[in-house]
Amino acid sequence: MCAQLLSTQPYKGTRDFYPDDMRLRNWFFGKIRSALELAAFDEYNGPMLESLEIYAAKSGEEIASKQTYNFLDRADRSLAIRPEMTPTVARMVAAKMNELTFPLRWFSIPNMYRYEATQRGRLREFWQLNVDVFGCDTYEADLDVIISAIRIMQAFGADETMFTVRINNRRFFNDVISAIAGTDAEGSRAVSKVVDRKNKVSRESYEKDMTALGLDGNKIAKIDALYNMSVDEATALCPDSQGSRELMDLFAALRASGLDKYCVFDFGIIRGLDYYTGTVFEVFDNAPENNRAMFGGGRYDNLVGLFVKNAKISGVGYGMGDVTLENFLVTHGLVPDLYKAETKVLITRFDDVPYTEYLSLTDKLQSAGVVTSLYLGSKKFGKQIDYAVKGHYSHIVIMGASELEKGVVKIKDLEKREEAEVALDKLGEYFTKG
Amino acid sequence: MCAQLLSTQPYKGTRDFYPDDMRLRNWFFGKIRSALELAAFDEYNGPMLESLEIYAAKSGEEIASKQTYNFLDRADRSLAIRPEMTPTVARMVAAKMNELTFPLRWFSIPNMYRYEATQRGRLREFWQLNVDVFGCDTYEADLDVIISAIRIMQAFGADETMFTVRINNRRFFNDVISAIAGTDAEGSRAVSKVVDRKNKVSRESYEKDMTALGLDGNKIAKIDALYNMSVDEATALCPDSQGSRELMDLFAALRASGLDKYCVFDFGIIRGLDYYTGTVFEVFDNAPENNRAMFGGGRYDNLVGLFVKNAKISGVGYGMGDVTLENFLVTHGLVPDLYKAETKVLITRFDDVPYTEYLSLTDKLQSAGVVTSLYLGSKKFGKQIDYAVKGHYSHIVIMGASELEKGVVKIKDLEKREEAEVALDKLGEYFTKG
Repeated sequence: MCAQLLSTQPYKGTRDFYPDDMRLRNWFFGKIRSALELAAFDEYNGPMLESLEIYAAKSGEEIASKQTYNFLDRADRSLAIRPEMTPTVARMVAAKMNELTFPLRWFSIPNMYRYEATQRGRLREFWQLNVDVFGCDTYEADLDVIISAIRIMQAFGADETMFTVRINNRRFFNDVISAIAGTDAEGSRAVSKVVDRKNKVSRESYEKDMTALGLDGNKIAKIDALYNMSVDEATALCPDSQGSRELMDLFAALRASGLDKYCVFDFGIIRGLDYYTGTVFEVFDNAPENNRAMFGGGRYDNLVGLFVKNAKISGVGYGMGDVTLENFLVTHGLVPDLYKAETKVLITRFDDVPYTEYLSLTDKLQSAGVVTSLYLGSKKFGKQIDYAVKGHYSHIVIMGASELEKGVVKIKDLEKREEAEVALDKLGEYFTKG
Repeated sequence: MCAQLLSTQPYKGTRDFYPDDMRLRNWFFGKIRSALELAAFDEYNGPMLESLEIYAAKSGEEIASKQTYNFLDRADRSLAIRPEMTPTVARMVAAKMNELTFPLRWFSIPNMYRYEATQRGRLREFWQLNVDVFGCDTYEADLDVIISAIRIMQAFGADETMFTVRINNRRFFNDVISAIAGTDAEGSRAVSKVVDRKNKVSRESYEKDMTALGLDGNKIAKIDALYNMSVDEATALCPDSQGSRELMDLFAALRASGLDKYCVFDFGIIRGLDYYTGTVFEVFDNAPENNRAMFGGGRYDNLVGLFVKNAKISGVGYGMGDVTLENFLVTHGLVPDLYKAETKVLITRFDDVPYTEYLSLTDKLQSAGVVTSLYLGSKKFGKQIDYAVKGHYSHIVIMGASELEKGVVKIKDLEKREEAEVALDKLGEYFTKG
């Protein structure tokens, strides 16, 4: 034991989850899990530590080593605390490629770490829902993951006034930019970087970057028009592009399912990473004070190929961080009172009744499925009531010597402020009759 | 993308949880959570990374730095991936000592890392249930945590033939050793180390160690007698010891609750760590091939004092690792078929029916609460059946052009191998009528 006192603060960018915080987290992970399980998605998980090289292979050495917590173990293996789940899941799929039955429809809610400056919505430790479909190359899988995201938002009570799914397609983007500007694949990628930055820079800077890529005012204007087009207008510019067909099929299915009210075509959605190849989407918070992408994803082809020669397994998926989602739910008033309407019973304790009587009463209630605890210790009654109120108990049960003699208990409903006297053998019924 | 292929293996001592593995894990964590929530324990969690010093303060610098994954962050903070939860929870309690209402009855199921040689039951990454009660100094809290452990084992269907809770008390130990051998506190601690090693060394070596501490044959024989004594016989040797009273109260309450059939007094239970001060216990697997402690805990006074000057908050609790528990459940045949009796429906797909019809059918079933997915892609019917079987689906729904025209679907029960034709508007009822 050292003489100097230790700090009680959690490490920078991480959080302590006290019971109230944990209850909120369990509630919203529970909602997510239920929504995905109803759609028969399968949950998986992997280790917190992975070899650093799997992140370097996906994102480049510099990003991987700068953005992760990484170190050497005692056998000089270079390890990182996972900053994202995609390399892990790609590794897992690769490891059992010949045993798994595709398409896989998988999800996970892992904790992960990124080494970054802390700010609103960005912590160093966070949890992230990952939903992915592997082994289906067509738009049906893109639709499947987009629907799953909408179902999750619906499960929280969010409606179309609160969020919007903004959808684009990388194949379509490349084809239409190539048609407008005459660029090759490399040139289209350069344009995509400028489009990706559009909302973060001035109009002047945007035009300067476009001009530097050889696009004149006329071409820039044609691209400008795309930002305001409907999916039908946009795809009509390039009807033979595979990307156009994917967009049209996707939006037709969303319309038929009545889900188009949540969705909009948005040519400005790029998602920076180079590995996206087809559909890309971002889910925006519509609140004016927080109007920005909460999460997103898209189709990425063949990350499994990093692990297995000649593997050709495409994926489509998204990641949703817990902090962003929690901000959204709070902003829109979608977090209910998580203690309301829940029965939780504290048995109070008096010194003139044998402790074993209280133990048997506790057992009786728990056996009837009633959430119950027995007050620990022997503080005054007022302290025990205080404990019940602060601990979100709905009822207290009182059994003093006189009640014990009569074979009854008193039950106080702490919310309704009502009191009842109930025979010991009717106790289970009292709480379970509803 | 690098040309060299990456390894598909998880890092040494860690596990990938594929959906079947994850289902098992979710099942047993779910059972644990339900058992503890029924007893009104509150769940909490903390960060994976903590400052290394909190482990050094508890266990010494050498153990802390040898047994943890630790490194410096870019601001030269010395961090460790948590190897256990107790320092974190002590820190959290210390941070809000004046806001929290004691006694706290808390649990957590965190993942953690220890740097150690991997062997059966010991991995580098594991999950560990932690149950603790803070702020109740008397035997009632010791009883509360022991009962919670028994309730968890019962929830899994384990009975008294399968496990035993072996209980001792450090205060009693010190007092009775002092009475027998005339040792002071330091001397009794030295004896406790020898007793702790008893089952790991030869009888000869045990006696040699005792003799080295100044115990003659007579004293060694008196201690030997204790290993076979009942709690009543043992406590009679030292009736005025606070430890004796705690043991007697604890066992009386266990007897009155009918839980004594799971419990036995065992003078050989020490639990190595110096910080235990009162009740200590270990839960043993009774299986002859695996007869050893699965998990354990006890009363530790005032870890919170590492963080807050003059704090006096005692704790009692235990930690239970997922690997050990899983071995126990498998050994005793306590893992049921986790897919049995669960409805999970795959809607098969034919090219002559519009995809939107299938989307609407999927929505209809999910809205009725039936776990349902639509086959993604357009493989042959046989492939789709194969997918259903391998994915643990209980039913497939068939809607070809002729069924669509008639407004019906065919439902195949894959387990019973029965087929039914059901009208589209009766579909929800078919699955939910039970």
